[in-house]
Amino acid sequence: MQKKLIGPFKQVLSLADIPLKGAISDQQLHVIPESGIRIEDGKIVEIGTYSDLKAAATADTVLIVPEGDQVAVPSYVDCHTHIAFAGNRANDFALRNAGATYLEIAQAGGGIWSTVQHTREASEAELVKGIIERANFLMAQGVTTIEVKSGYGLSILEELKMLRAIKEAQKELSVTLIPTCLAAHMKPRDFEGDNSAYLSMVADNLFPLLKEEGLTTRIDAFIEQSAFSAEEITPYFEKARAYGFDITVHADQFTTSGSAVAVAFGARSADHLEASTEQEVALLAQSDTIAVALPGASVGLGCAFTPARQLLDQGASLAIATDWNPGSAPMGQLMAQASILATAQKLSNAELFAAITFRAAHALNLRDSGRLAVGEQADFITYKTDNYQNITYLQGSLQPEQVWKNGTNIFTKGERA
Amino acid sequence: MQKKLIGPFKQVLSLADIPLKGAISDQQLHVIPESGIRIEDGKIVEIGTYSDLKAAATADTVLIVPEGDQVAVPSYVDCHTHIAFAGNRANDFALRNAGATYLEIAQAGGGIWSTVQHTREASEAELVKGIIERANFLMAQGVTTIEVKSGYGLSILEELKMLRAIKEAQKELSVTLIPTCLAAHMKPRDFEGDNSAYLSMVADNLFPLLKEEGLTTRIDAFIEQSAFSAEEITPYFEKARAYGFDITVHADQFTTSGSAVAVAFGARSADHLEASTEQEVALLAQSDTIAVALPGASVGLGCAFTPARQLLDQGASLAIATDWNPGSAPMGQLMAQASILATAQKLSNAELFAAITFRAAHALNLRDSGRLAVGEQADFITYKTDNYQNITYLQGSLQPEQVWKNGTNIFTKGERA
Ligand SMILES: [Zn+2]
Ligand SMILES: [Zn+2]
Repeated sequence: MQKKLIGPFKQVLSLADIPLKGAISDQQLHVIPESGIRIEDGKIVEIGTYSDLKAAATADTVLIVPEGDQVAVPSYVDCHTHIAFAGNRANDFALRNAGATYLEIAQAGGGIWSTVQHTREASEAELVKGIIERANFLMAQGVTTIEVKSGYGLSILEELKMLRAIKEAQKELSVTLIPTCLAAHMKPRDFEGDNSAYLSMVADNLFPLLKEEGLTTRIDAFIEQSAFSAEEITPYFEKARAYGFDITVHADQFTTSGSAVAVAFGARSADHLEASTEQEVALLAQSDTIAVALPGASVGLGCAFTPARQLLDQGASLAIATDWNPGSAPMGQLMAQASILATAQKLSNAELFAAITFRAAHALNLRDSGRLAVGEQADFITYKTDNYQNITYLQGSLQPEQVWKNGTNIFTKGERA
Repeated sequence: MQKKLIGPFKQVLSLADIPLKGAISDQQLHVIPESGIRIEDGKIVEIGTYSDLKAAATADTVLIVPEGDQVAVPSYVDCHTHIAFAGNRANDFALRNAGATYLEIAQAGGGIWSTVQHTREASEAELVKGIIERANFLMAQGVTTIEVKSGYGLSILEELKMLRAIKEAQKELSVTLIPTCLAAHMKPRDFEGDNSAYLSMVADNLFPLLKEEGLTTRIDAFIEQSAFSAEEITPYFEKARAYGFDITVHADQFTTSGSAVAVAFGARSADHLEASTEQEVALLAQSDTIAVALPGASVGLGCAFTPARQLLDQGASLAIATDWNPGSAPMGQLMAQASILATAQKLSNAELFAAITFRAAHALNLRDSGRLAVGEQADFITYKTDNYQNITYLQGSLQPEQVWKNGTNIFTKGERA
């Protein structure tokens, strides 16, 4: 049994007693001053005053002392990304900011379909390389669990290629990838048949293969005027449920209807919600579905933010994720985006940290991560500062000094990931 | 005479022919493919096709070849910062996001007055250290000219201390600091007398000392309900003008009136403008005063953005700066903020680059920097990419590979600044 004692930290941010749902005050963050973390076999066995922990340490405990003043916080969970892709949409971004319409961008060879084409043309190995680079970029920010969606393949073979690439990338990474099948991202242009026919084809042919290869436990769909209607998605989700998949939904980005489907199906999460009104907020608040805000899409497109304050005040559980994708959210910086959402929507530090740690973990059905508490995985990050408030205050400009996962140091600042 | 030829670059972004005012299309960026930059004694003498430049290079020309595919763009100018300060306002940020009012924050020991107190308590050497750290943080982002305001001293001696600290910091830096006196930031709590008496005291006592010590050529004032009225500032600016100072104004942040004063005094710039209406936009557009947007304050406070699109469309000259300060804009990331403003306000890449290069330089009365053109200073930055569009597209996530000033490499990525 491997025993470690890490400390002293100026502060450890525990988040231990924060409820899963609703508004949170900073008093609930559970800040432990002059503290240490005792770890056995990758799990937290004790958090408390460092001097006490050190005095009680057994001879076989490895003592690890952080350099200078540091604080420790739970490592982050990015519960919504599309980091498996090929191609580049910088020209779309330039055109959109120069006033081009969606149609003009598509006519210039851009739009989501260009990402589908590039992703289909890419080999599985090329996709693996891109996933690894982006996952390591997130790791340097303190993210140790990353959801990754397919959805740029849009055929049985190409969706399989994407999900296999995620599985392969996992072998080269210290962080954990959670794959999600988003074959219902849009109906591909080259499918002959209507939306329902496409969804039936996917459910009947891809779902059994996903199970067989163990490629994912999660099914996502984009419910939007430009993608699939609630009616079209309902039988698709019924089949997904029959297979035992968890459900998650791209909901209410531009028009509402997705969140009602998410709640009806007991989805793990309903993501986007920029267009949600009081009615959708109330529905989500009464459910166990996590509301996921994606400020990277808001600042990537220049659109409204998710009504995060309202969701929390009504009692919903709020997570925040990057939505990192080549079209609408190219930035890929979780803390900067979360902190910008926080000033816009007036989210407390407690609400912000909860949204990128254990509440995001819950959206992925992970129950033992995202807090620094006895029995949980020792997944944490350290910052060179004496006050955790600086992490959100500096809006992403303060980067983690070290990243730890399962009690092991997987990244130190200044090292190439 | 020192001769250098740097290249080949996949692209050099020249910006040579962009006008000082008004909207700009990306076609006006003047992108030179497969190009090189020829430098003599720190100035650009030729930009063109690399193979031609290399063939014509004299024997005494030093050839410098970038590693891999890189593009070169003019280095950036941050024309509005408050990076000379002491203390930390992370608790203000936390309280504000948790819903506290301005008054509650002040009662908790926060607000601008706490920065004044900490800055007064700091030694000049401590201020110098802080300025150097922050200037180097900006340099790593490609910023080689940084305006730095006083304004946390608010007495003759303390304002002098701040401006002397900026002068001292300059000696340790490769980037250029442009100091500005902002004694008219607010009336200090400990001044006995009204706003006008304070301003008279400053003008009569500080202005001659600024001239004598050569501490600044620029006078700034905060025109706002919480600071000084247009009527109070008018005699102050008249005195500043009599001394030959350039004028710049914190204008229209929450309420209008500042921009009219700025235009009336022929100010170099009117900065903030979040509250500007059509009337102020029209005034600025008809003037030679540069409109400076400060998106760092918008995302730092969660407020509206400056109507940048409207300003450009009406014919104004737009610059973008960080406003880096401990209260309302703690992030200090120029490209991330400019790119976020660009998606919100639909600014073309040309408008964005112009706003952080030569248009910002003009706000500082610098006429020979901010473009890569013959006769200008060889101040440029390189990025490891084959397409300049990626710089704005990645919203700050792509950082410069190298920073060059006056034809000298002053920073390379991965090195501690
Ligand atoms: Zn998404
Ligand atoms: Zn300012």
